[in-house]
Amino acid sequence: MKDNLKQRLAIDMDEVLADTLARFLSEYNREFGENLTKADLSERKLAEIIPADRRARLRHYALSPGFFRDIPVMAGSHAVMEELREHYEVFIATAAMEFPSSFSEKYLWIKHHFPTFPDTHIVFCGDKSVISTDFLIDDSPRHFDRFSGRGFLYTAPHNRAETRYPRLNDWEDVRRQFLTREE
Amino acid sequence: MKDNLKQRLAIDMDEVLADTLARFLSEYNREFGENLTKADLSERKLAEIIPADRRARLRHYALSPGFFRDIPVMAGSHAVMEELREHYEVFIATAAMEFPSSFSEKYLWIKHHFPTFPDTHIVFCGDKSVISTDFLIDDSPRHFDRFSGRGFLYTAPHNRAETRYPRLNDWEDVRRQFLTREE
Repeated sequence: MKDNLKQRLAIDMDEVLADTLARFLSEYNREFGENLTKADLSERKLAEIIPADRRARLRHYALSPGFFRDIPVMAGSHAVMEELREHYEVFIATAAMEFPSSFSEKYLWIKHHFPTFPDTHIVFCGDKSVISTDFLIDDSPRHFDRFSGRGFLYTAPHNRAETRYPRLNDWEDVRRQFLTREE
Repeated sequence: MKDNLKQRLAIDMDEVLADTLARFLSEYNREFGENLTKADLSERKLAEIIPADRRARLRHYALSPGFFRDIPVMAGSHAVMEELREHYEVFIATAAMEFPSSFSEKYLWIKHHFPTFPDTHIVFCGDKSVISTDFLIDDSPRHFDRFSGRGFLYTAPHNRAETRYPRLNDWEDVRRQFLTREE
């Protein structure tokens, strides 16, 4: 199908396509000899469950060269992304402005893991309400506030208490929501 | 006025806010001992009026560290931008994907020349049809093809033959179009 006949779908990067939390946990565990897992976070952010005097280390990790380049791909995302691109005009939309040093690393990450993804469809922005797509998959509900399309919340520990938006728990949920057609 | 009550205006960077062509001309003139000016371009791109064997140098300039950091601000843009921000929710939208090495330099350029401009309202993208604003000021008519708002063409030598869109010749035109109210 031609792109201009497809519905448009924007997909967030950190915590949706990229398992950024896993990278924070591995950096933290390595530095402090801990074994924190995602399950330990429950409904909280990592910064909320670690000692206050270690919180600044998280920002330090994110600002370190290579941090965003080496984030693992979120489990299951790769195959579903390929299928989504057949049926939707897909954009990768990432709020990169919090860590401007991450621009190039995020771009290289996309080119490495999704080498055929077109540059034209990568968006680095701060406020995703500026994005004009039919759907947005994101782990941060704040991006849905003024978004004109339909927002889907990708589950992360920090958003488990959020109830206002349809929720996708993993990439199999993404497949079911966007790629399962009634025959 | 609160941002969410304002109309939204996206402004392109290269050739609109930033005088990128002036930077290309100065690099080219310095290397080849020429005195090319914008007037010499008439309706053409710089690449079209220079000897074919020098064309690759333009891409080389754009890929050189510091090129995008040191571009002059477009004459008249600074004061009008400040006024626009009082009356519109303004985004700076730049198609940075052609030169991904330019991300950080473009970000630093914005922070340097417009230090109070919010990170949340900077957008790096490829295809600007993904931007949801009421207006877009751009020198590349291709960005208006699928843009849902109203496009205004900012005059550059390469677009002088384009007649499909309302035209803004300089930042005084921008002021007249967007800031002059009938009393």
